[in-house]
Amino acid sequence: MKYHLLVISLLIILFSCKQVEPIKNIDSAINKKDSTTIKQIFNLALTQGECYKRLDELTNGIGGRLSGSPQAQQAVEWGEKVMKEAGFDKVWLQPIMVPHWVRGKKEEAYFTINNKKYNVPICALGGSIPTPKNGIEAEVIEVKSLNEAEQMGEKLRDKIVFFNGAFDDTILRTFKAYGGCVGMRVNGAKTTGKFGVKGVIVRSMTHSIDDYPHTGVMSYNDVEEKYWVPGAAISTKAANALSIALKNNPSLKFYFKQSCKTLPDAPSFNVIGEIIGSKFPNKFITVGGHLDSWDLGDGAHDDGTGIVQSIEVLRLLKLNNIKPKHTIRVVLFMNEENGLRGGKKYAEEAKKNNEIHVAALESDAGGHTPRGFSFQATNENKELFLSWKPLLAPYGLRDIAPGGSGADIYPLKNETISLFGYRPDSQRYFDYHHAATDTFDKVNKRELELGAASMTSLVYLLDNYLD
Amino acid sequence: MKYHLLVISLLIILFSCKQVEPIKNIDSAINKKDSTTIKQIFNLALTQGECYKRLDELTNGIGGRLSGSPQAQQAVEWGEKVMKEAGFDKVWLQPIMVPHWVRGKKEEAYFTINNKKYNVPICALGGSIPTPKNGIEAEVIEVKSLNEAEQMGEKLRDKIVFFNGAFDDTILRTFKAYGGCVGMRVNGAKTTGKFGVKGVIVRSMTHSIDDYPHTGVMSYNDVEEKYWVPGAAISTKAANALSIALKNNPSLKFYFKQSCKTLPDAPSFNVIGEIIGSKFPNKFITVGGHLDSWDLGDGAHDDGTGIVQSIEVLRLLKLNNIKPKHTIRVVLFMNEENGLRGGKKYAEEAKKNNEIHVAALESDAGGHTPRGFSFQATNENKELFLSWKPLLAPYGLRDIAPGGSGADIYPLKNETISLFGYRPDSQRYFDYHHAATDTFDKVNKRELELGAASMTSLVYLLDNYLD
Repeated sequence: MKYHLLVISLLIILFSCKQVEPIKNIDSAINKKDSTTIKQIFNLALTQGECYKRLDELTNGIGGRLSGSPQAQQAVEWGEKVMKEAGFDKVWLQPIMVPHWVRGKKEEAYFTINNKKYNVPICALGGSIPTPKNGIEAEVIEVKSLNEAEQMGEKLRDKIVFFNGAFDDTILRTFKAYGGCVGMRVNGAKTTGKFGVKGVIVRSMTHSIDDYPHTGVMSYNDVEEKYWVPGAAISTKAANALSIALKNNPSLKFYFKQSCKTLPDAPSFNVIGEIIGSKFPNKFITVGGHLDSWDLGDGAHDDGTGIVQSIEVLRLLKLNNIKPKHTIRVVLFMNEENGLRGGKKYAEEAKKNNEIHVAALESDAGGHTPRGFSFQATNENKELFLSWKPLLAPYGLRDIAPGGSGADIYPLKNETISLFGYRPDSQRYFDYHHAATDTFDKVNKRELELGAASMTSLVYLLDNYLD
Repeated sequence: MKYHLLVISLLIILFSCKQVEPIKNIDSAINKKDSTTIKQIFNLALTQGECYKRLDELTNGIGGRLSGSPQAQQAVEWGEKVMKEAGFDKVWLQPIMVPHWVRGKKEEAYFTINNKKYNVPICALGGSIPTPKNGIEAEVIEVKSLNEAEQMGEKLRDKIVFFNGAFDDTILRTFKAYGGCVGMRVNGAKTTGKFGVKGVIVRSMTHSIDDYPHTGVMSYNDVEEKYWVPGAAISTKAANALSIALKNNPSLKFYFKQSCKTLPDAPSFNVIGEIIGSKFPNKFITVGGHLDSWDLGDGAHDDGTGIVQSIEVLRLLKLNNIKPKHTIRVVLFMNEENGLRGGKKYAEEAKKNNEIHVAALESDAGGHTPRGFSFQATNENKELFLSWKPLLAPYGLRDIAPGGSGADIYPLKNETISLFGYRPDSQRYFDYHHAATDTFDKVNKRELELGAASMTSLVYLLDNYLD
């Protein structure tokens, strides 16, 4: 009887204990070959890395590369050339048609109190229609959410709606704070156009209080064209100033002018390179980022870093004499920012060709210091991936957990594939996101290289442990 | 018998399991009050934080503040004022005498090949003697370590010794890479002066390959004054160029000129503020950083961030209505960079006054995203501190481990005190360290605030759990 109790107690303690850390992790932690290989990958990335130099070419050499622009085409040619030089087994272009929106002339905005003008840094949102040639001037109604605007209804007629919802600074994961606000940018015009508003201005999607407007996609979706109104983003400093001014002068006038327009869809490409697998040549692991970017900055953190890191993954595997069992694909996706045509096309073609995709990894969260990976996977694979924690933790990769993956690889989702998102430190990311400040100098060489090594280590493990 | 085996097996498994994560951590993890308080500290830091504004005042308002300089005195007055305004129970200045070295006029350097001059970004090392008025010109001998120089011995006579040991890029903790090289800067002149060298130039202590020389302290220690020679640092780009040039032109001449000098010791101060403990008024927890900085930049990451974070700790405790049991001291230490007189004096006075110091925390590793704390403590306290891991992990504070603490608090060390060093992400730190680039714009507001909240949370736990 005593023994029965002892066994039961031990089982209970053991059970509580297992919740903390499954025992099988210990086995992985001491897998000497894996830990040696990963250390070697990091050493090579930090001493013979080329991704920083490549990022310089892509950002300072080519610059912002909005879908359909000449720069996007240059980036396609650059990507093809770089991958060919890197010694991939095969490199090719996958044709797609992309939306072709152009900003036109520099935008202009101000508000007026007692005939005094206060200039406002502004930029058209991607996909917006232009204002009339002479601009729009109207009174402003400030709201903090789509709901609040919806409830105002007819009161919004002939006004400019000012969506001034700020990021929640208490949220540690900045992407979550972004998620709480970005609906106003995407759907602000769509939601209020039907009430006869003149236009929509949105507080820039950033924590930073500064003078830079942040663009990004907006959508009219299935709204009738007669209800379409222009949308623009203003800097956070201007948003704060306008909000204060409105409290004292509710009938102040806001003026803005933009000449953007949408041209017919343009031809473009995903750029794809691969190393053919030694054991499973018809099973694929895809690694990628997006080659297009917004036009205001040089698309450094969004997503030049993801592009050069993805290319570096194959370079580092080769440098390290790793012959992958699966075919490893690097995909430079086109048009993530305003259409996702590249991601959709890649998944479509994969399906059409009956390709078996076992895993995919996307880097589209900036090039800061690595913190981990989030993933979508079967329960069985989830256990496997969590067992790699002790192998990755020495490199600061502590956040290995189920979660999102990436917009471009998500169309590949099915019941078996494992989808991964690379998760670097996110605190600075939205300071630059979609703004003129997203330039090469904001990227640190070591942080970028550590990210490439992290991604390569994950791909090595996936290739090694998945069938 | 079956049961015996089962019990033994279970005990074995349980034992292996306990190695992974002691069960008592689970208790701490679910200490609801602690986790609620810590969340509240982070919320306040991120929404009502003042440390970023304070850093602006200290760096853009005052600038570099080398011990003995007028700016160092301004910083003392600023610190006293800010702490008084923040509502500490008591604020005072602790007088010290500090070394007073001045850079003099801007330095100049070049090397010459076939009468063509190649300009070299250079800066005198802190504590160096000047060159003769017209500078020094001599042939160069390149070495990679103090040992190598020592072994050259008399071959160095009449030469300029060029210490060109680069950071080991494969080391993930950048402070460790620094530790592997900094001896050349500190002791290069001391080691080679006796061989009759003309002067010493050192590769800047940084990973970054750029045009900025990084200064820092050097020492002649107990070497006879007749063997003292001038020491200077050159940019990493120039070091690489010089190294290549020397391979082709071993007898090229290097020229440099500097007019720095050491004046008599100057009066200065540690700035100290405290909140008196409710239960143990005579037991102290000290939090600090150093107020002095090198003169080339504005001392933002080194160590303006540590200063404003330390002050913010008390503000956040007060804002959160936490009445500490122990007396909490904030110390803005003077002269960490070239003498440590502030740290030594603080410990001396503590001893003289029979103060019981239970813990101290230093922030002197930059203002980037928090990663953890390293500590020196008794075995008993070590267990306690490790049990806090689950409380701190949600804030990215994953590296809680025995290790170093900080130069200014180390003189407090005795058999009972717990000494902590705040450990933020270190990848970018040495890009700016002691260089003209260490300016306010390199600090991110959220990263800085997260650091202040991390430090406050640790102080809250120390105050709560230590006697």
